[in-house]
Amino acid sequence: MSRRGLLAGGAVAGLGAVAAAVALSGEDTPVPVAATGPLDTGTATVAFHGTRQAGVAQDPPAHAAFVAFTLAAGSDKRTLSRMMRLLSDDAARLTRGVPALGDTDATLAVLPARLTVTFGFGPGLYRVAGVPSPVADLPKFSIDRLERRWSGGDLLLQICADDPLTVAHTQRMLIKDARPFAAVRWVQQGFRRSPGVQAPEHTQRNVLGQLDGTANPRGTEIDPAVWNTDGSTQLVIRRMRAEIEKWDLLAVADKENATGRRLESGAPLSGTNERDEPDFGALDDTGLPKMPDFSHVTRARVTDPGLKILRRPYNYDGVPNALGHPDAGLIFAAYQRDIARQFVPIQQRLADKDLLNEWITPIGSAVFAIPPGCAEGGWIGEQVLA
Amino acid sequence: MSRRGLLAGGAVAGLGAVAAAVALSGEDTPVPVAATGPLDTGTATVAFHGTRQAGVAQDPPAHAAFVAFTLAAGSDKRTLSRMMRLLSDDAARLTRGVPALGDTDATLAVLPARLTVTFGFGPGLYRVAGVPSPVADLPKFSIDRLERRWSGGDLLLQICADDPLTVAHTQRMLIKDARPFAAVRWVQQGFRRSPGVQAPEHTQRNVLGQLDGTANPRGTEIDPAVWNTDGSTQLVIRRMRAEIEKWDLLAVADKENATGRRLESGAPLSGTNERDEPDFGALDDTGLPKMPDFSHVTRARVTDPGLKILRRPYNYDGVPNALGHPDAGLIFAAYQRDIARQFVPIQQRLADKDLLNEWITPIGSAVFAIPPGCAEGGWIGEQVLA
Ligand code: HEM
Ligand code: HEM
Repeated sequence: MSRRGLLAGGAVAGLGAVAAAVALSGEDTPVPVAATGPLDTGTATVAFHGTRQAGVAQDPPAHAAFVAFTLAAGSDKRTLSRMMRLLSDDAARLTRGVPALGDTDATLAVLPARLTVTFGFGPGLYRVAGVPSPVADLPKFSIDRLERRWSGGDLLLQICADDPLTVAHTQRMLIKDARPFAAVRWVQQGFRRSPGVQAPEHTQRNVLGQLDGTANPRGTEIDPAVWNTDGSTQLVIRRMRAEIEKWDLLAVADKENATGRRLESGAPLSGTNERDEPDFGALDDTGLPKMPDFSHVTRARVTDPGLKILRRPYNYDGVPNALGHPDAGLIFAAYQRDIARQFVPIQQRLADKDLLNEWITPIGSAVFAIPPGCAEGGWIGEQVLA
Repeated sequence: MSRRGLLAGGAVAGLGAVAAAVALSGEDTPVPVAATGPLDTGTATVAFHGTRQAGVAQDPPAHAAFVAFTLAAGSDKRTLSRMMRLLSDDAARLTRGVPALGDTDATLAVLPARLTVTFGFGPGLYRVAGVPSPVADLPKFSIDRLERRWSGGDLLLQICADDPLTVAHTQRMLIKDARPFAAVRWVQQGFRRSPGVQAPEHTQRNVLGQLDGTANPRGTEIDPAVWNTDGSTQLVIRRMRAEIEKWDLLAVADKENATGRRLESGAPLSGTNERDEPDFGALDDTGLPKMPDFSHVTRARVTDPGLKILRRPYNYDGVPNALGHPDAGLIFAAYQRDIARQFVPIQQRLADKDLLNEWITPIGSAVFAIPPGCAEGGWIGEQVLA
């Protein structure tokens, strides 16, 4: 198990090289910098064990599968704890690049590529366990056009890695081991930029062409927004269909007005650089606010550090229909300490009024408590189910 | 257009760095090597113009979309040539990292990531153009379980890039411009290892865990197998469902027998290293051939350099069903000078007898002539449609 050497600490191995190798400005203008270390995209690991689960605070890898399950009839605390012991063991191994016990495709387990497996518990799991749930189903929002096939779930696996085959294999092994305990409810597969295409921490673009993630909490801002003292957090997943056919009819300036930021640079309409703070008081020549009152950014803005959310969305792009209309959008995933206090008011404000609503439609919705991490030998959910 | 500097020659920019940075042995054991140049995955380009189309001989990028169209009723040589002028111009721009004319999401066009767009003409296109077709529909094979939704097509776009967002954007723009002329018939999206996960030219693994591509023609072997003197070639696409539930029941030795190669190293059962030539005469202790008579490799083997095919498959992994059974397999894409002389006899031999048949099922099938490339200012298909 010499591979173990790589895994010490929570650090992401190999990232330094990529960071050093490419730096991109807000306009995606490449600024090549000499690489300094070994490129290690395949063997890089993120520690599974710890007081908090992995896959939340780390820079999101390129590929993700969100897998939601419905628990089998007759489940109880005992079956749940058996399932979670098994799945935690699988995740602990696979995230190190070690095959799962009884891995039927061991050759696919050796390149973790920053693999993380994050477990979420839906309200239904707590009901079965007879334990009060930290999360409740969302209220209905007027903009919702929810489809059952993308909504709900008792158990969630968020599987992320920089390699799509690693995600596929991990998904396969975990589903196989979960199968005696739960049925697959839905699977959502998504992507961000490939490794090396942009520097880590660089804001990704989404399928609408926007820089997406600019105002996210980062560094020390993450803790007060995301982590409860016991190491738990909460996750909302909204499948947001992008109405790209309609979006394409807009002029760039109209897209920018709807968003409140420039398309190319990501700068707020009141500023010049991506990282400039929006100035909601600034007026243009005609006396109108530079940041439109109903732009997405104006409406979504939260200033209290404890009320922000950490967005960790992935793009999806399914198969277009015969007319060539795309089936694309965002798997909007957001982490926070408390969905009711953080996500819900933001979503309510956006539902009430957000210019972007015309071009984005919530078609799926699910909430999950993310229990604390576990130590080596422990398992995810032990505080709830043991 | 300072970006132009990057694009000179047919060379793939930035690959050197990746090649130097990671070297993997047959067993995926990482051998990190110091990187020597700038990492340039996003800005790397493959020249669109040339006597042969791009996207055939180049090491396959990580992501692909195969998009097949049915021509609109009333199409003729004139409409086809208009369509191909338009699509060729789009492809020439996008592969350089320049937005298409009228690109509705220009910000998504700037990171080509080795983007190639390869055009294929199905028998139906030649029929409409009133020109004899170089390709004919395949004969029916006994193993075929073809579904219409993955089969046929008058026009094909093979879009490959090292970044999934680049593929999505390119697919979107090309479909939009093709729409007045043709309806989307099917789209198949596939993947290989992410950039940097393994060294270029390293054999990929497929969803069955096999090293896939070992015996492919490489270097100077490609020309006699693939390219006609006019710069044309031919493409077969077979959607091959992998029966993974059944595959998982096999012991490693049985998987290896069915394939004729070791799972981990890819070595032929008669040898020790991936690149060892199989010895079909070698016998084991019990007097049986080391390479089973009906293994996939034994049955598929071709020795005449002019009769080999160049396989360029991508994995697919769709959404599993409620029981957790995967929807995964190979988008088997193979290039050759002449489908009738090269692909058909191999597929016939495999259909007659191939141990692997038990675990792979052809569910889609299509054939396309790949016309020669074009010079700057020219367009793909000009020899056929002008
Ligand atoms: C397809 C759906 C969506 C798209 C395309 C989208 C796009 C964007 C963009 C481009 C920005 C500006 C850049 C940035 O800070 O990331 C942004 C900011 C933001 N979005 Fe969204 N968004 C979507 C859905 C949502 C949803 C469902 C929520 C929460 C209910 C949300 C909450 C926010 C927040 C809190 C910000 C930061 C505002 C600030 O403080 O500046 N977004 N979004
Ligand atoms: C899901 C479907 C398939 C799988 C999983 C598969 C897998 C493999 C594997 C593992 C090898 C050995 C390593 C290598 O040389 O790449 C191989 C070789 C080969 N396969 Fe397939 N294959 C599939 C379908 C096909 C089809 C449809 C054809 C053509 C009709 C084909 C033709 C070949 C050829 C020509 C070789 C090289 C044989 C040699 O000369 O050693 N394969 N395949």
